Amino acid sequence: MATRTTRSKKAGLPPGTLIHIGEQRVTTTRLNLIEYSEAGLNQQELKSLSDWRPARQENKVTWLDVGGIHQVGLIEQIGSYFNIHPLVLEDIVNSEQRPKVDDYDEYLYVVLKMLYPHGDDGEIMAEQVSIVLGRNYVLTFQENGKDCFDGIRTRIKTDKGKIRKCGADYLLYALVDAIVDHYFVVFEQLGQKIEAAEDDLVVNSEAIGLGAIHVLKKEIISLRRVIGPVREVVNGLLREEDGLIGSSTRVYLRDVYDHTVQILETIEMYRDRTGGMIDFYISSSSQRMTAVMKVLTIITTIFMPLTFIAGIYGMNFEHMPELKWRLGYPVILTIMILIGIGMAFYFRRKKWL
Amino acid sequence: MATRTTRSKKAGLPPGTLIHIGEQRVTTTRLNLIEYSEAGLNQQELKSLSDWRPARQENKVTWLDVGGIHQVGLIEQIGSYFNIHPLVLEDIVNSEQRPKVDDYDEYLYVVLKMLYPHGDDGEIMAEQVSIVLGRNYVLTFQENGKDCFDGIRTRIKTDKGKIRKCGADYLLYALVDAIVDHYFVVFEQLGQKIEAAEDDLVVNSEAIGLGAIHVLKKEIISLRRVIGPVREVVNGLLREEDGLIGSSTRVYLRDVYDHTVQILETIEMYRDRTGGMIDFYISSSSQRMTAVMKVLTIITTIFMPLTFIAGIYGMNFEHMPELKWRLGYPVILTIMILIGIGMAFYFRRKKWL
Amino acid sequence: MATRTTRSKKAGLPPGTLIHIGEQRVTTTRLNLIEYSEAGLNQQELKSLSDWRPARQENKVTWLDVGGIHQVGLIEQIGSYFNIHPLVLEDIVNSEQRPKVDDYDEYLYVVLKMLYPHGDDGEIMAEQVSIVLGRNYVLTFQENGKDCFDGIRTRIKTDKGKIRKCGADYLLYALVDAIVDHYFVVFEQLGQKIEAAEDDLVVNSEAIGLGAIHVLKKEIISLRRVIGPVREVVNGLLREEDGLIGSSTRVYLRDVYDHTVQILETIEMYRDRTGGMIDFYISSSSQRMTAVMKVLTIITTIFMPLTFIAGIYGMNFEHMPELKWRLGYPVILTIMILIGIGMAFYFRRKKWL
Amino acid sequence: MATRTTRSKKAGLPPGTLIHIGEQRVTTTRLNLIEYSEAGLNQQELKSLSDWRPARQENKVTWLDVGGIHQVGLIEQIGSYFNIHPLVLEDIVNSEQRPKVDDYDEYLYVVLKMLYPHGDDGEIMAEQVSIVLGRNYVLTFQENGKDCFDGIRTRIKTDKGKIRKCGADYLLYALVDAIVDHYFVVFEQLGQKIEAAEDDLVVNSEAIGLGAIHVLKKEIISLRRVIGPVREVVNGLLREEDGLIGSSTRVYLRDVYDHTVQILETIEMYRDRTGGMIDFYISSSSQRMTAVMKVLTIITTIFMPLTFIAGIYGMNFEHMPELKWRLGYPVILTIMILIGIGMAFYFRRKKWL
Amino acid sequence: MATRTTRSKKAGLPPGTLIHIGEQRVTTTRLNLIEYSEAGLNQQELKSLSDWRPARQENKVTWLDVGGIHQVGLIEQIGSYFNIHPLVLEDIVNSEQRPKVDDYDEYLYVVLKMLYPHGDDGEIMAEQVSIVLGRNYVLTFQENGKDCFDGIRTRIKTDKGKIRKCGADYLLYALVDAIVDHYFVVFEQLGQKIEAAEDDLVVNSEAIGLGAIHVLKKEIISLRRVIGPVREVVNGLLREEDGLIGSSTRVYLRDVYDHTVQILETIEMYRDRTGGMIDFYISSSSQRMTAVMKVLTIITTIFMPLTFIAGIYGMNFEHMPELKWRLGYPVILTIMILIGIGMAFYFRRKKWL
Repeated sequence: MATRTTRSKKAGLPPGTLIHIGEQRVTTTRLNLIEYSEAGLNQQELKSLSDWRPARQENKVTWLDVGGIHQVGLIEQIGSYFNIHPLVLEDIVNSEQRPKVDDYDEYLYVVLKMLYPHGDDGEIMAEQVSIVLGRNYVLTFQENGKDCFDGIRTRIKTDKGKIRKCGADYLLYALVDAIVDHYFVVFEQLGQKIEAAEDDLVVNSEAIGLGAIHVLKKEIISLRRVIGPVREVVNGLLREEDGLIGSSTRVYLRDVYDHTVQILETIEMYRDRTGGMIDFYISSSSQRMTAVMKVLTIITTIFMPLTFIAGIYGMNFEHMPELKWRLGYPVILTIMILIGIGMAFYFRRKKWL
Repeated sequence: MATRTTRSKKAGLPPGTLIHIGEQRVTTTRLNLIEYSEAGLNQQELKSLSDWRPARQENKVTWLDVGGIHQVGLIEQIGSYFNIHPLVLEDIVNSEQRPKVDDYDEYLYVVLKMLYPHGDDGEIMAEQVSIVLGRNYVLTFQENGKDCFDGIRTRIKTDKGKIRKCGADYLLYALVDAIVDHYFVVFEQLGQKIEAAEDDLVVNSEAIGLGAIHVLKKEIISLRRVIGPVREVVNGLLREEDGLIGSSTRVYLRDVYDHTVQILETIEMYRDRTGGMIDFYISSSSQRMTAVMKVLTIITTIFMPLTFIAGIYGMNFEHMPELKWRLGYPVILTIMILIGIGMAFYFRRKKWL
Repeated sequence: MATRTTRSKKAGLPPGTLIHIGEQRVTTTRLNLIEYSEAGLNQQELKSLSDWRPARQENKVTWLDVGGIHQVGLIEQIGSYFNIHPLVLEDIVNSEQRPKVDDYDEYLYVVLKMLYPHGDDGEIMAEQVSIVLGRNYVLTFQENGKDCFDGIRTRIKTDKGKIRKCGADYLLYALVDAIVDHYFVVFEQLGQKIEAAEDDLVVNSEAIGLGAIHVLKKEIISLRRVIGPVREVVNGLLREEDGLIGSSTRVYLRDVYDHTVQILETIEMYRDRTGGMIDFYISSSSQRMTAVMKVLTIITTIFMPLTFIAGIYGMNFEHMPELKWRLGYPVILTIMILIGIGMAFYFRRKKWL
Repeated sequence: MATRTTRSKKAGLPPGTLIHIGEQRVTTTRLNLIEYSEAGLNQQELKSLSDWRPARQENKVTWLDVGGIHQVGLIEQIGSYFNIHPLVLEDIVNSEQRPKVDDYDEYLYVVLKMLYPHGDDGEIMAEQVSIVLGRNYVLTFQENGKDCFDGIRTRIKTDKGKIRKCGADYLLYALVDAIVDHYFVVFEQLGQKIEAAEDDLVVNSEAIGLGAIHVLKKEIISLRRVIGPVREVVNGLLREEDGLIGSSTRVYLRDVYDHTVQILETIEMYRDRTGGMIDFYISSSSQRMTAVMKVLTIITTIFMPLTFIAGIYGMNFEHMPELKWRLGYPVILTIMILIGIGMAFYFRRKKWL
Repeated sequence: MATRTTRSKKAGLPPGTLIHIGEQRVTTTRLNLIEYSEAGLNQQELKSLSDWRPARQENKVTWLDVGGIHQVGLIEQIGSYFNIHPLVLEDIVNSEQRPKVDDYDEYLYVVLKMLYPHGDDGEIMAEQVSIVLGRNYVLTFQENGKDCFDGIRTRIKTDKGKIRKCGADYLLYALVDAIVDHYFVVFEQLGQKIEAAEDDLVVNSEAIGLGAIHVLKKEIISLRRVIGPVREVVNGLLREEDGLIGSSTRVYLRDVYDHTVQILETIEMYRDRTGGMIDFYISSSSQRMTAVMKVLTIITTIFMPLTFIAGIYGMNFEHMPELKWRLGYPVILTIMILIGIGMAFYFRRKKWL
């Protein structure tokens, strides 16, 4: 990943210096503008910000969706247009933010992570979304073109639900809700993977390696890191006090809050389950070990005495009367067989066989 | 379970869209209506909501009990009749809710889980109950026909206790109390299972597999997930501030609160006990391992030197004077026996025998 | 225990239904009445509540001590006499309560557990004590006749200390203090048991089985469950706001509070110590295992090559020149001895011997 | 320790009964009196309290240091002289107090533990110090004659620092500071012991037994129990509201507070380090086990087949053509050597050698 | 380190006694003075404090940077010049402080730790920085000459960013931000080390010793100890109430606060990952053990019976008819081969081969 810039590049620079941190995922930034009110709708793809001739009427809600955050010049332009604090812009172009909500009186700045499965093995990818909520506008900044907001766009276009009747705060809610709802999709896949691994483990605890369980556990830990703060973010929106979020929207946000709590509990449960799998693996591996040891001990315990007896009658002493006996050989063979059977009974009583 | 709908189906839909999530457990929805006051009682099974000719007198309490939540149309009808917020309806038909209480000023929305043992092996099943408490009505929504409210229905019909003398808030209390009381029934069964497993383990730590203990532990973890939030729910009811719950009912709810605390402590104790069982299993399994090793070592240590001596006198050297001795054989046999006895003494001193 | 009633019997019954839960420990209920003031004292055993002709003078403190809670009729009678809420009565006859304090404005309801060692092996038994503190009376309800209040009775009778000069709140304090003080007695015994087990473990880690340590640990966990909430109870008494507890008594309760904190710390320390014992046991058991393995390996490593050499010269090839040598046998014996000594040196260098 | 009285002796006695709990460390109680102000100083050893003719002038600070707490009569005398609550006196003579601060409006009662290394092996001993801070006096009660207050006495005598210029609150600070400062001395010794143990462990993990690490861990746990509450004590002094502690002294106490936080962090770090040592010990012990097993397996795997081959040619069949071959013996010997070398290569490839 | 003074040297000394604690890292103290305002800049290296002729104009910010804290006389001089409390000076010369912020009304005292990698193996070194923020001055005290403030100096000199336009509070922010930003640099290196160790472990779990992982873990624990309190320090600055920090600077500090939260989460994640590595190491080590055991068991189980059979026909009985059979030898050899193949099949079925 040659285009990846790490956090340490910024050490020592003055605050508000815009440096893109993270992996560049798209080549050109996409600017998607939707202006809507209950009366009408205006949607267009902008080439640059100067293309935009906004009709900033009273009840219109403006949603500017920016796809790609590596063109810091463009971000700066948008920032100065909407009068956004340099620190917010710095955070927008840094894709390694922790989910958070910052209150700048005139607007709210929300950082969240979108999750989606990637590739054939369903590895979970995270993508950062920055949302700025102003009085009558919402700005969204994504790393990539792909997102989970298509349902919202359709609802706006087709005037479905109450989205066109509500303000920018409801749009913010719809965006956050879409992101959190998408977590459930990702989680169901993860849950199926865990269940499959658990089933494999019970059937044959060697079929699934310890490494695979550790990979699952690591995935869950990193998910928790991404999703953990989301509850606090939604809580922060609920406690917002500048009037940017109306009380009717708050009811909806409380619903999203319940979902985040549910998701966090699911993560904890997944963590417990993978922990249980590791415990199970280790103890069943130690059981296999004991089984191996038993076989070894049984074989040794049965054959050592027998081999010893054979060794005795293999000695070359001149005066060993048993050797001359006509029935010496069959008698000794019988004794050996009896010893073997006795041992087998002993082990059966000890429950080793 | 072909009729099961998962949470991910809802991603991207506008809020308030009613989609039944969970397993459909009944074919037709049952509508049971009880209207009562101190003076009289009116109970009927409704075919549809339009059958209902309510006499909404001043002091009557109306309890509409809905059995089955998959007919979203019916739920919507009831919702609009009682003026319930779409988000509440959405939650009612989603059987994967976390227990919670939401305050909508005019009414309270409470979600709880009923527990009952299922099938022969006493597996514990959870069923969601949604309760809406209004000024003079209570709505309950269950997944299934079966519930634990028969005692309450009898009390209303026979005018036993003070239920007919009290308002809708007391009915809410009675419902919550019945659900929480039922937890104790389920818990006693679980406690007996744990005790039986513990006894088996002490008698013969191989009689009960590690898998069985892990199943118990998993059951306890999932119970905790269901019951854990109930304490907060009852606490939320105690702190409710819209006057929906009177102060005399609060005294009773405080009693329910004590029960939830007691149940949570019981779960923690069960968890500790299963944890202790796993520890005990692992360490007694390692003790068995040591026992096996000791047998192996004793056998090897006794017979290896003896076999070696036999091997020496099995060598074919021409000049081995001992072989010619008349007492060579009995002397060597005696030496072997002495070595064997010496080893046995050594192991006894080492406490291996 | 045929007389034991479990919690599940109550499921579905209306609140305030008195059902004795727990084991019946006495046949008839004992009613002990003490009325005292600075001026005088009146003590009597009542046959029934109707025997009592109370002289409820202004400054008298009435202490009614009820021994036995299975006669629910009697409890109900007392409850109606003192105007106690049905829920409190329900709790009094349920011996599986968690320690708690409930404030009913006119009186406080306190539940605590008395602990005393039972039988020869000093198993710790818990017994529930319910205390109701009114303006000028204290009711105590015990399961059994035996208690730790004799010191208080003596102090009242002999007018020792300031108990006769103080009100009912001081009597409550004295009762709680007596119960908590008794915990120290039980704890010292438990501490000695733990110390003895630790000493046994260090001397000979096989002398004390893992099972015994687990029993100790389980005992500590169940003690914590009983004593844990006591701190909150005393704290609740300190924060009581209805004026039932005077400020001079509060100073004494703060002292009791310190004791409960001390006891909780002791439990935590005991838990740490038993945890440490289990760790020590497991690791010293693994050390024994390694010691066993070393013996096995030394024996095998020394005798296997020697037996192999003996095996070579036991082969029956016609052309084995060594066999004909006059010194073949002593040379080979010497080589064997040298190999044995060499092995011993090797193991000494490896610190296995 | 025949003179040791345990806590249980007090069960059932009225509050305020003075019983010395703990070990009696000195025979006669030492009474050291220092009265000082900016102007002058008066120091004397009192035989009994009646020897004291105090000149309780306005700006004098009186420090009465009592060495020995087993003479309860004397403690009672001092208590009545300074008008101290009986519960405080009870706590003073009980050397098993938890560190705490109690506010009695007219005076503060502070309990702390002094630590000092004892004997050759540097075992850490704790001694209880009770401090009573009044408007213009400080009482200290120690178990033993030895203390860490000599620096303070010297400062008072030589008028060094600002101690003579400040009031009793500053003296309290100086005493607490001296005790906490002394913790650092004890901790440095402990830190060196831990470091030495760690170094021993890395060099030769068998040099230091698991027992020794467990002793260290137990020492740290018991230290944490003694020091843990000190932070809360100092915090309690900072939040004191009766004006006993002036704001200029508060600045100094804040400094002590920082020290207690630092000490608690050090304990946590020590705990982590001993925990890490135990982990390291266990895993390196399991590595040794694996090493032993490998030796065993290598020897067995090499010699078993060889011994088997020797066994074959030791059979006494009449028709075994190989035995008659002239080169039979050297060929078999060569085959044996090749098998041995092959095995060695196999184990080298498996990284066992 | 002969010049290292430990904390215990200070026990018993009056507060405010300046004793340098820690390692002396430079020989002479460096005094770097920068005075700046929007209008001008004055930078000079001072030989001693008396060289300084400050023009303390209204809007000038004075930054005195002291490199070296072992010359306590100089520190005392600076302290008395700026009227700093003796306790602050005592803390400044004690390099074993915990990060903290103390509010002295007229100034704030902040202690932080700078981190930088040291030597070839990138060991992380910590160095203490004390910052005193007054109305229009900032004092910084470092142990060493090396620091991470060059970027700030350049920004002041070249008037880049808004630093020259802002007050002393913004300089404090810039210093704290530089220190926290530098943590990211150190953390990226540490992250790479952990990743490398993880990769090594997966490829060959014996390549990296358990010791190396323990060293990593210990490094992370000690980092957490240094960085953990930084979040509270920045939070303390945000809550400062004396007006030393303006509201516009607070916005920037909130940004730093987010960074400290992010860093703490990174440490936790690192800790989880090293914990996971240790688990993985132990369990893969136990898997190797099982593999070794299997080889041992297979060899023993195959050759023991074969050797026994060879032993039987090595017995010297006169009457053993098989020995005379012409096909005796080949028949027995065939039987032996069949037993060997049978065992191999058995082990393949058991999945041991």
